[in-house]
Amino acid sequence: MKKLNTSPLSGMQELLPTEQAIFDQLKNNISDVYHHYGFLSIETPIIERTDILLAKAGGDTEKQIYMVSKTDESSDSADQALRFDHTVPLARYIVEHNNDLAFPFQVTQINRNFRGERAQRGRFREFYQCDADIIGRDKLPIAYDAKVISCIYAALKTFNLPRMIIRISNRKVLAGFLRALGLSEKATQISGIIDHAEKIPEEKSRAALYELGLNDDQVNQICAFMFTKGSFEEVETKLREILGDLTAVQEGLDELKEVTSILEAEKTGNFIIDFMIIRGLDYYTGTVFETMLEDYREIGSIASGGRYENLASNFTDQKFPGVGGSIGLTRLFFILREHNLINISVNSPVDYVILPLSANEYEASFELANSLREKGKTVDVDLTDRKLGDRFNRAGKIADFAIVVGSNEVINQKYLAKNLKTGETTEL
Amino acid sequence: MKKLNTSPLSGMQELLPTEQAIFDQLKNNISDVYHHYGFLSIETPIIERTDILLAKAGGDTEKQIYMVSKTDESSDSADQALRFDHTVPLARYIVEHNNDLAFPFQVTQINRNFRGERAQRGRFREFYQCDADIIGRDKLPIAYDAKVISCIYAALKTFNLPRMIIRISNRKVLAGFLRALGLSEKATQISGIIDHAEKIPEEKSRAALYELGLNDDQVNQICAFMFTKGSFEEVETKLREILGDLTAVQEGLDELKEVTSILEAEKTGNFIIDFMIIRGLDYYTGTVFETMLEDYREIGSIASGGRYENLASNFTDQKFPGVGGSIGLTRLFFILREHNLINISVNSPVDYVILPLSANEYEASFELANSLREKGKTVDVDLTDRKLGDRFNRAGKIADFAIVVGSNEVINQKYLAKNLKTGETTEL
Repeated sequence: MKKLNTSPLSGMQELLPTEQAIFDQLKNNISDVYHHYGFLSIETPIIERTDILLAKAGGDTEKQIYMVSKTDESSDSADQALRFDHTVPLARYIVEHNNDLAFPFQVTQINRNFRGERAQRGRFREFYQCDADIIGRDKLPIAYDAKVISCIYAALKTFNLPRMIIRISNRKVLAGFLRALGLSEKATQISGIIDHAEKIPEEKSRAALYELGLNDDQVNQICAFMFTKGSFEEVETKLREILGDLTAVQEGLDELKEVTSILEAEKTGNFIIDFMIIRGLDYYTGTVFETMLEDYREIGSIASGGRYENLASNFTDQKFPGVGGSIGLTRLFFILREHNLINISVNSPVDYVILPLSANEYEASFELANSLREKGKTVDVDLTDRKLGDRFNRAGKIADFAIVVGSNEVINQKYLAKNLKTGETTEL
Repeated sequence: MKKLNTSPLSGMQELLPTEQAIFDQLKNNISDVYHHYGFLSIETPIIERTDILLAKAGGDTEKQIYMVSKTDESSDSADQALRFDHTVPLARYIVEHNNDLAFPFQVTQINRNFRGERAQRGRFREFYQCDADIIGRDKLPIAYDAKVISCIYAALKTFNLPRMIIRISNRKVLAGFLRALGLSEKATQISGIIDHAEKIPEEKSRAALYELGLNDDQVNQICAFMFTKGSFEEVETKLREILGDLTAVQEGLDELKEVTSILEAEKTGNFIIDFMIIRGLDYYTGTVFETMLEDYREIGSIASGGRYENLASNFTDQKFPGVGGSIGLTRLFFILREHNLINISVNSPVDYVILPLSANEYEASFELANSLREKGKTVDVDLTDRKLGDRFNRAGKIADFAIVVGSNEVINQKYLAKNLKTGETTEL
């Protein structure tokens, strides 16, 4: 009889050990690639001052934040809350420790964040984000935008997913485009419409644009813009067709050209310039990118990021431009399982289970276990006195091989490893 | 100018990247050993229902718990709080998922927990605990107690610490001893006095025992008991001297004998039976153990654990006996740094920093970087246009080698790696 509700709280991922092993493997894959690209690990506290977390935020973020309190807290203690992303704590970290860091500072954070979103299937309130960021002091060349994209793409390649594509845009192109059309004042609303355009029929986007008071020409031009995608040469040609003169979008185009030419030099893989990419009404100021699976566009972006011109403007007058990207691993893992797209092989958690037939064989069993561990194997010694069948049964659930150790084996120093899938035995 | 307080909250560990790398290495060492001993990883949510967390707790725990709330929480949602250890969530997990687990279930959790202790130097409110537990269904042989102790000791051995010693006792011995003395009713108070005896002069412990109304004989017997330590044979002889008859303590002694004989068979290392070990007024019911550094006894225990007869009694009527141990890594790391006892070597976070002299050398630099990464190396490509001296300076802070890539190097396909410590160069 259960006395209390023992299910995890809604919106929290909790896995069985075999699933956890797969999740951990994916997480390690990402971490390994980030490190091989020269990103250094840091870890910031999960609890932060509320004024730090909400310095820039507002709207949904403020509503979704988890506040933290202690019953015996003294009155002078600051308001505290759980962090909702890695970016705000990173900004605080950079300001606090900037004298001890080597810039450009390439940094990775792979850890849990918390958002009290409305509970629904596939949305998580506690979730892993795997961030890779590069922060400059005063300035940071645009080439680093390509580096972050390459690194995130390389990390995702370890997942063996089908037909990944990186979609890249630059906020400065959109801003210049709207300026050329005399629509700068409506930039926020128009960005919002383009940001949502993918999920609705074109007619609805057009209607929304008309609602803003735009005329036919403007609506046509914006629709032409947002459906523009291709190589750098293709989108440049298309923009020239729409605008005639490229002056207003030149800075953004130059950045796009640099980023994409480096991605080509790095042989990063499948990417495309796509002006429908906006990345919400976020803090990005230049390059923005998303990664999708071409055959599963309904999944949406599986990794994204962009350039922010001034990371820590709420905390300091010093300028720290940065570029970063993130893989939302908890949600991605959920989606990949739903679509049967987990294509990595994970070893059984245990290589060998040793089954001593009685306490007389413990010493020999421990010796055998330690010698296998020294060879890098994972070894469990079963110390129960249950029936051998039950012990084999347990071994089969966690391990590849079982080794029975009885008095004969000890005397002859001859051990047989039984493959728990095939039943085959081999001498050790 | 700083606009907000950017220091981490008090009681939170926040490390620079080089220190983080050492911390991570120690954490990985523990995790590796646990896995090699056949423990499976799980991860439970950091946020739990308050009624689950506080089902057994009380006193300090209740005062130290971090409550969690959302501003827009609907009225039907449960009270939530941050977990303060791994044991309570593990009990919930076992009850929730027991049909999908293979028992004995060997499980490890290496993650952060939260306690709002009074802030003081070296005490942490957010801290890593590295737990290894073995849970049985209905019963679990005493031999597993030895397995947990061996495994934790093996994990700590990777730290290269001087003169570690495991101190082992068994709660049943103390309980039987007090029963033989007719003092069972005062068991809780007497346990508390023994638990604190190490930190105060013997006279104070004696005074505390007298205050409980004990007579001279009883006080002498308890003091003789609590200073008893040695091999199994030695403590058995000593107990016989004090008590005459061993019937009351026999069950506890039998368990101690089995645990220590297995530790010997496993060649676990330096251990001793020591009846001063109590492990607080906790939930332990049999074996208890602590690990200390003999030359730094003032540090106290660096890893500890014990047997709990019924892990989940607050959540279910099913019986899940268990044994577990934990390394409090955040506190241990702090202490080891204070005592200059970090004896592991950690590589520079980056092996090579590649320094292209201009954008013309990017493509060759990326190619070189990728070929080094394929060999398992960590490689950063510096894309700044700063002076070469500044770029070398940054490289020296994070990497072992720098490779300058200019047009000559590209033409000749000949790259020199400069050792950033010695200045020596070698051809790649």
